[in-house]
Formats: sequence, structure tokens, C-alpha cells
Amino acid sequence: MTTIMKGAEVAARMREALERDLAALRRRNIEPKLAIVRVGSRPDDLAYERGALKRFEGLGIAAQVFEFPETVDQESFAAAFAGIDASPDVHGILLFRPLPKHLDEEAIKKAIDPLKDVDGMSPLSAAKVFSGAEDGFAPCTPSAVMEMLDHYDLDPAGKNVVVVGRSMVVGRPLAMLMLMRNATVTICHTKTRNMEEICKRADIVVAAAGKARMLSPAFVSEKSAVVDVGINVEDGKLCGDVDYDVVAPQVSMISPVPGGVGAVTTSVLAKHVLKAADLLNRRRTNFA
Amino acid sequence: MTTIMKGAEVAARMREALERDLAALRRRNIEPKLAIVRVGSRPDDLAYERGALKRFEGLGIAAQVFEFPETVDQESFAAAFAGIDASPDVHGILLFRPLPKHLDEEAIKKAIDPLKDVDGMSPLSAAKVFSGAEDGFAPCTPSAVMEMLDHYDLDPAGKNVVVVGRSMVVGRPLAMLMLMRNATVTICHTKTRNMEEICKRADIVVAAAGKARMLSPAFVSEKSAVVDVGINVEDGKLCGDVDYDVVAPQVSMISPVPGGVGAVTTSVLAKHVLKAADLLNRRRTNFA
Repeated sequence: MTTIMKGAEVAARMREALERDLAALRRRNIEPKLAIVRVGSRPDDLAYERGALKRFEGLGIAAQVFEFPETVDQESFAAAFAGIDASPDVHGILLFRPLPKHLDEEAIKKAIDPLKDVDGMSPLSAAKVFSGAEDGFAPCTPSAVMEMLDHYDLDPAGKNVVVVGRSMVVGRPLAMLMLMRNATVTICHTKTRNMEEICKRADIVVAAAGKARMLSPAFVSEKSAVVDVGINVEDGKLCGDVDYDVVAPQVSMISPVPGGVGAVTTSVLAKHVLKAADLLNRRRTNFA
Repeated sequence: MTTIMKGAEVAARMREALERDLAALRRRNIEPKLAIVRVGSRPDDLAYERGALKRFEGLGIAAQVFEFPETVDQESFAAAFAGIDASPDVHGILLFRPLPKHLDEEAIKKAIDPLKDVDGMSPLSAAKVFSGAEDGFAPCTPSAVMEMLDHYDLDPAGKNVVVVGRSMVVGRPLAMLMLMRNATVTICHTKTRNMEEICKRADIVVAAAGKARMLSPAFVSEKSAVVDVGINVEDGKLCGDVDYDVVAPQVSMISPVPGGVGAVTTSVLAKHVLKAADLLNRRRTNFA
């Protein structure tokens, strides 16, 4: 029997810990708050924003959307962003990317207070994830993969883990999180030869290639645990990077799309905001 | 017949390009200079320093040693370091690490001008290597491995590369340099199971474990190219992480220790200083 790794179950379990941490923060008179910064109104961003707002409302954590027109100029946007970043009420910032081409995304990424960088977009956050530092924020999606493994008692230590995809939002940071947890990690990508064979040998395969249903039964064995990070739209329907219907019966564990990793990312975002609120408050106390 | 990858041959070939680049900088009235910053006088540091000074003298590139007593306090050292970093005559800084425990190494690493960070020690340099940016400096040793592969026409693209070791000075940055060059990369470490099997399957194995002669014939096949980054001392003799005498006859290519990667690192340091001098001068010109 294949175990289906359900995002909703992971989120439900995380909820208990989040409520406990939130209560602990409130006892210290800290009211955590997320700022969502959006330029323009891409449908993907709006969908994610709705999901995040719903999750935060359900948890009782404040979240405020800061919306800018797509035509905002660099100077105004940078100044507004700096204001949000400096606000003592804001403990975490989620910035939708990519920004419109006329804006300097790298400058904004560098400007964010590392302690408020709850989606791990700054170079300093990347360096912390790369070096395995405990106090850095990885982007939410790779962190959600780790939450999923933990919930289903799949300890990556000593296991052979293959990450398919090498993006800075999923593949690379995920490889580093796996390494921190003592997995033996292989990173595959479009230039990889014999990828089927490499994936088939792995204990855990994470598909983050951004290519609909590329992972076929030839990539797995009956011992495989498969985590699907892909979010693709085919004929108006959401599908992952795994050819789920034919792969699921062949493996020991698998996460579906939708209903898998994607259902965990906003819980991770909340977790990061609570952690940021804690760290920011300790920093302030130390300075006082 | 096993091809022996000789560091001296790589360094000799690099010398031609370095002399050409140096001449081009001088035509722009730029006289590149390395600052070597040393606290105390560990024998390892002194040996590397002698090698670097000799290499730079041979190339006609300036190098100046800034020596501090082991007892220097944080405030004085940070101020002196800032002065060296700010000096317009200095284009690159090599800082011997680890610093004595009473000094704040992280603060110094963060303070360095990223363009002068020729040994890739700062978080910003790490982030650039992690993300695959072309303008960041990786530490000299992993860069030397890439120079060696290039010299021996071993293109990592599409190849299976195993890096044994996950340090921030060799293993992790090397994995990212390999990824930039389109290798399929696996990172192994002390918690890896079936390491022999994983290494045996690889086209290229880089040993950076810091464990004398751990890589035995069981880790290789006749098609393997083996690069040995280890520098260990046994009975007063230098030896690598590869059990060279028994492994060399079994593989297609191998680098010895001494006389392998270690003989290339100071040439890489020189290459980075010339690149830094070029980038710094362009930055100044842009600001003028």
C-alpha cells in the first residue's frame, strides 16, 4: 500500500505547534505580523496571497497586503519597501517575485532585514542556508518539503536523496537542507544523463523541475518516497512534475498535487513569521 | 595508462594567461596587489604564505604581508583590517583562518569588500557561488580543482561527479562550481552509507574529506578521474585523501599529493587578484 503524504495533515499537525508558539509570543506582548508586498496583480500571486491570508486568519496571525501598481518607479518602491522593512510592527516580509523588469530586484533583496526575510530571498539568507546555519530562513517551499518528511517520519539522515531541479527557490536550498539533515544528496537537472537510473536508486526523490509529469514510473522503485514540488497547469488543471496516476501505485510514499507540498508552504510561512518575531524581539532586547 | 594530473603543468599554462591579463591591467595604469593578513604564525599559514609570495614574485604581482600578534584585540584588529580593506592600493585580501578564538571571525568576514574577497570567505561571496553568479569569488581550492579539470580537458557537463566532503572551503562551493558547469553532483560525507558504491559509479570523484588515504581502490573504476584535495600529514610526510599508490593504477586520471591541486591554488589566488583589480577599477570609473 502506497502512503499518500497529504499536505493538509502536515498543516494540521503544524497548527498545534504554531498556536503554542503564538501564545508564548503574546505572553511576551509580541503580536506577530506578516507584510505581503505585491507589485501588480498576477493571478498566481493573487491565488497564493488568498491562501496565505486564509491560513494566517485561521491561525489568528496578522497579515497585511501592501499593493503597488505595476508601473511604480524604483525610487518610490525602494523607499516604500524600506519603510515596511523598518516598521517595528512588521516581523516578516513576503515579496512576490519576479518584480517588473524596470525594478531592481537584486537591490530590494539585499535591502531586507535578514531577520524579516521569512521567504529566504536575500543573499545573506542564501549564504546561511548554504553554510547550514540554524538561524537563516530557507524559502518556504523547500522548508515545506522537510516538514512533510518529518511528519511522515522519513528521516533523511544517511539516505540517498535526489533533487531534480537546481533553482534558487527550490532545488539548491532543498539540497542544502537535506545535507544539514545528513542526507547524501544528488542534484539533477536538464543536463543530467541517465536521470532515470539515478532517481530509481534513490530512497527519496524530490521533483522540482517545473515540467509537467516528467517523472514516470521508470524513475522509481517500490522503496521510493516521491515528493512532488511541481505546480504546472495542463488544460486548465493543476498537475505536478510527477505522472501521479501511474507512479503512485509503484512507490512506497508519494505526495499528490494539489494537496501535497503546496498545502504546507503557508504554514511554513507562518512558522517563519513567529520565529522572526521571536528573533527580532530578542535583538531589540539585547540592544536596549 | 593512467594520466597523472600535475599541478605544475596547470600552473604553467595559467601563467601565460595571467601574464597577459597583468600586462592589460598595466596598460590601464593598474598595479594589482594582494594583502595577506595573518594573525599569529601557525606553521601551515607560514608555509602557504611562502608559496604565495614566491608565486606572486614569479608573476611580478605585488603582495604584502600584514602580520598581527596572536594577542591582538578585536577593536585594533577590526580597525586595521578595515584600513587594509579600504586602501585603494589593495585589490585582494587573503586572511588566514581560523582566527584566534577571542576575535570575531564572522564580523571580519562580513566586513570585507566583496570585490576584494579573493578567497571567497564572506557570506556575499558564498551566496554568489551558491546561486551560480559569475562575478563572485569561490575559495581558491575548489577553483583550483576546476582549473585542473579544464587543463586536462575533462568537461564536467553531463558527467556524474561525486564530491566527498561538505566543508564551506571545499566541498560545498566545489559542488556549486560543478553544478554551474552542468555536472550532476552528489555530495557525500561522514554520514553517507554505501559510499564506495556511489563513488565507483562516478565519472569524477573529488576527495575532500580531510582523512588520510580514505579513498581506496574499492571507490573507483577504470573510467574514474580522481582529484585529491586532501592535505594530511602522516609520519611527517604529506599525503592526500586518496591511497595513491594502490588507486592510481586502477583509474584513468588522478592528481597526486603533493604536486596536484595544492600547486594550483596560488595561481588561482593570482587570477582572482587580477580579476578583482579589474572589477574594482571598473567600479571606480563608474562612480567617477
